[in-house]
Amino acid sequence: MVLVVRGELRLTAGKAAVQVAHAAVQLVEGAGPRRQADLDAWRAQGQKKIGLVAATLHDLEQIERTARSKGIATVLVRDAGLTEVAPGTVTCLGLGPALAAELDPITGALPLL
Amino acid sequence: MVLVVRGELRLTAGKAAVQVAHAAVQLVEGAGPRRQADLDAWRAQGQKKIGLVAATLHDLEQIERTARSKGIATVLVRDAGLTEVAPGTVTCLGLGPALAAELDPITGALPLL
Repeated sequence: MVLVVRGELRLTAGKAAVQVAHAAVQLVEGAGPRRQADLDAWRAQGQKKIGLVAATLHDLEQIERTARSKGIATVLVRDAGLTEVAPGTVTCLGLGPALAAELDPITGALPLL
Repeated sequence: MVLVVRGELRLTAGKAAVQVAHAAVQLVEGAGPRRQADLDAWRAQGQKKIGLVAATLHDLEQIERTARSKGIATVLVRDAGLTEVAPGTVTCLGLGPALAAELDPITGALPLL
């Protein structure tokens, strides 16, 4: 599972962490019956999660499109906006769970969060 | 839901975010039938999550004991230790979901992550 924070928002570490957690929970809860095998494999391997940064909303949306075109589950987190950003602001993109071999070509060039 | 990172480990922002996400997912997935009403109420209110810091493992364990004595769900995240910390290191404590009125007396004095 890869969680990509939107860098241009310059979120605090705590705010970024919460967005990453929103994305992870939404990916787990949103996985339908067809994704249960992916989830089970991911759980069996320690629920690996990687936090990355992409600069802009445009970047997040481009990564999302690429991932979806390859059949990888995605979620865009929109923040309730009570603190650092306006309500509805896209803060984070979650991808997976999927194999590293599937995710790396899409997000492997992004810097770590 | 409150996610408390262990400050003395001085994790990078990305590593801390992943530990917070581990805690959130484990709290959601570990909630048994008796906790479904708490989870539903939390989802209905936007899945609120707060990231905090406690200095030491001793602090985390003390907070965990207090929360458990009040019937609040808890999870201690142990990291696989592939990068910044030794395998099995406790990195984060997750609490809830529960009402702010229940969580605030336990964690309200901790600084934001």
